Amino acid sequence: MKFEFSDKIKGLKPSVIREILKNMADPTIISFAGGSPAVESFPIEAISRYSNELLSKEPLSVLQYSITEGYPPLRESAAEFANSTWVIKKETDDLIITSGSQQILDFTAKCLCNEGDLVVSEEFAFLGALNAFKSYGAKLVSVTNDATGSVDITMLEQIFSAEQKPKFFYVIPNFQNPTGRTMPLEKRKAVYELSVKYGVPILEDDPYGQIRFNGQDVPPIKTFDTEGAVIYAGSLSKIMCPGFRVAYAIGAKEILSQMVIAKQGCDVHSNIWAQRVCHEILTKEDMVKHISKLQVIYKQKSDLMVSEMEKCFSDKVTYDKPDGGMFIWVTMPKGVDVLAFIQEAMTQKVALVPGVAFATDENVACQSFRMNFSTPSNENIVKGVGILGELTKKYCD
Amino acid sequence: MKFEFSDKIKGLKPSVIREILKNMADPTIISFAGGSPAVESFPIEAISRYSNELLSKEPLSVLQYSITEGYPPLRESAAEFANSTWVIKKETDDLIITSGSQQILDFTAKCLCNEGDLVVSEEFAFLGALNAFKSYGAKLVSVTNDATGSVDITMLEQIFSAEQKPKFFYVIPNFQNPTGRTMPLEKRKAVYELSVKYGVPILEDDPYGQIRFNGQDVPPIKTFDTEGAVIYAGSLSKIMCPGFRVAYAIGAKEILSQMVIAKQGCDVHSNIWAQRVCHEILTKEDMVKHISKLQVIYKQKSDLMVSEMEKCFSDKVTYDKPDGGMFIWVTMPKGVDVLAFIQEAMTQKVALVPGVAFATDENVACQSFRMNFSTPSNENIVKGVGILGELTKKYCD
Repeated sequence: MKFEFSDKIKGLKPSVIREILKNMADPTIISFAGGSPAVESFPIEAISRYSNELLSKEPLSVLQYSITEGYPPLRESAAEFANSTWVIKKETDDLIITSGSQQILDFTAKCLCNEGDLVVSEEFAFLGALNAFKSYGAKLVSVTNDATGSVDITMLEQIFSAEQKPKFFYVIPNFQNPTGRTMPLEKRKAVYELSVKYGVPILEDDPYGQIRFNGQDVPPIKTFDTEGAVIYAGSLSKIMCPGFRVAYAIGAKEILSQMVIAKQGCDVHSNIWAQRVCHEILTKEDMVKHISKLQVIYKQKSDLMVSEMEKCFSDKVTYDKPDGGMFIWVTMPKGVDVLAFIQEAMTQKVALVPGVAFATDENVACQSFRMNFSTPSNENIVKGVGILGELTKKYCD
Repeated sequence: MKFEFSDKIKGLKPSVIREILKNMADPTIISFAGGSPAVESFPIEAISRYSNELLSKEPLSVLQYSITEGYPPLRESAAEFANSTWVIKKETDDLIITSGSQQILDFTAKCLCNEGDLVVSEEFAFLGALNAFKSYGAKLVSVTNDATGSVDITMLEQIFSAEQKPKFFYVIPNFQNPTGRTMPLEKRKAVYELSVKYGVPILEDDPYGQIRFNGQDVPPIKTFDTEGAVIYAGSLSKIMCPGFRVAYAIGAKEILSQMVIAKQGCDVHSNIWAQRVCHEILTKEDMVKHISKLQVIYKQKSDLMVSEMEKCFSDKVTYDKPDGGMFIWVTMPKGVDVLAFIQEAMTQKVALVPGVAFATDENVACQSFRMNFSTPSNENIVKGVGILGELTKKYCD
């Protein structure tokens, strides 16, 4: 049988990261290429205890079909959790549970984009999001993300006011993937004002918001949202665990009700056991203490990686010390062949992702690569940074 | 903010079943409208035991990110399970794990259909499938399903050979939803031959295949498939439990590799705890014994509903005694107002789904309704059929 694939699927290339990760079956490889949360942060004891309790006391409630919008008490407890620092979910908003925040990105594109519609993204952005948008035939337009963690507001206004109005603007304001940078408050406000002025909704992806270990929290764009313009994607993958595939979308009822129809046709509902366990933990455990513990773990790993980089890397290589999240964005001087450097690192069994893998425009020149500090062990951080350090000197000095 | 929704999402109406199920919060309603498996059939003890074991012995393996294709040992054990009676998965086929078989239906449409492409379906078919196809802008073409459980082969050939060739044919050969009927072997062969002759792939949905309690099993269309023409959707929702959201797609590597790209952008991977528990049960429990036990439960419920219907229903109402699955398709004489009957049943707190809810063409006349026997308790089957019996006499006699 000769299958004739849809144009939207034909347009997707296998992800560079997935190709790199194929080599990861080799346990001798030190991977700074992933984006998995630190396993030390998972509330294993609590997950195990609540799971055993639910399965022994009310098994049918975690095994039968459930409703598409999500387990109703979790929809309440997730809202309370989201609103514990700021008012993210307004009275006029709804909240639904999804199978990972990836599904929120997918459904936003599905509900808003006809084929050929425009979606705005930061120039370097989360690859999984870009692929989800492209998988509905959307065309990407990018706005420059600068070294302060912001986007170019003038350029964004030009894009929003162009003849073909984009369908939404995708942005990760906190500890962005891949740059690790955080957008300043006044720029968030400027972005929101443009969104309302031109009627372009914002998809605010915030998987790393709770993982701040230096400096002061900055309010999400959703906190300013009096117009129902922002769809907020919150994730429990980093504060519980990603294997659950539990996330929550907060937004105007008008858009979330369409997402529910999309979800009904996609996977009916998310795994109900995981939803129930999340609800138990959010309501019965001390989440403030849990998140503080998690921040300590991430800070230790980030500090270790940065101090080893300071010790081993060529002085010509630049990077920001992260305030949170999982990633360090490292830039090599102009003229250095970054892809050759990454390939040589791979032969020495250290995996990295080239910055170009995150570019909306694959033909853009990019002297950066992304390093992840949350997944590798401390031992591998020291060893891997040492290997990379020698190589940076070979390529840059 | 005024959202401008995509044409494909705007085209979807809230499902009739979902509207009916909204009333289900009322515990005094007897529902024959659902499609949930019998809770008595869930292997609760085994699920609980393996879950506890996994969470205490290797918690990280069920909590961290996993690969999109599914937990590799489950991909093997699901293939072995699928092949335990016939060769469903050939050497040349691949198998991937999905979040319920609903996701296989969604991905098939996503990978094969551009907007405006045609999908062929039985005239009355699973509503969730029809909505999934429409959610990609596909147009439905229907082929008559007859009282023998077959489709009209001549009509199918006309559709396959038309100028606009359809992208695939969706069919549930075993205990079809909503009719409960099973397609005879020679018709399955005829369908497969047409598929190969005209190059139209088949999406064979088989959620109920294991729930046969009368008569002989009929081989799935996929067993004849030497050309990689059939995508087989197998589900663990009925033999394990639906809350897991674990299913498996078997098909040519060419199409499944595209589905993996779609899944990466949709939910990254399915809940890994549920995948691991399924693998433990498939490999360590006596599945033959488990499925025999399940068949006894379904037969008892089906027999009870049919015997009560024989006792209470008007003689003018017709239906087939089911050989498996979950549903009985009931037809009222021409001239009877079926929707008024269903509405009056609802006022007497018995819920049914009108046949027209499953029609590819909503304007078709349909004298039938669907009754589900797997979800209600025995007590409610007796009570509910009694109420309906009186009403059938009022409407038909």
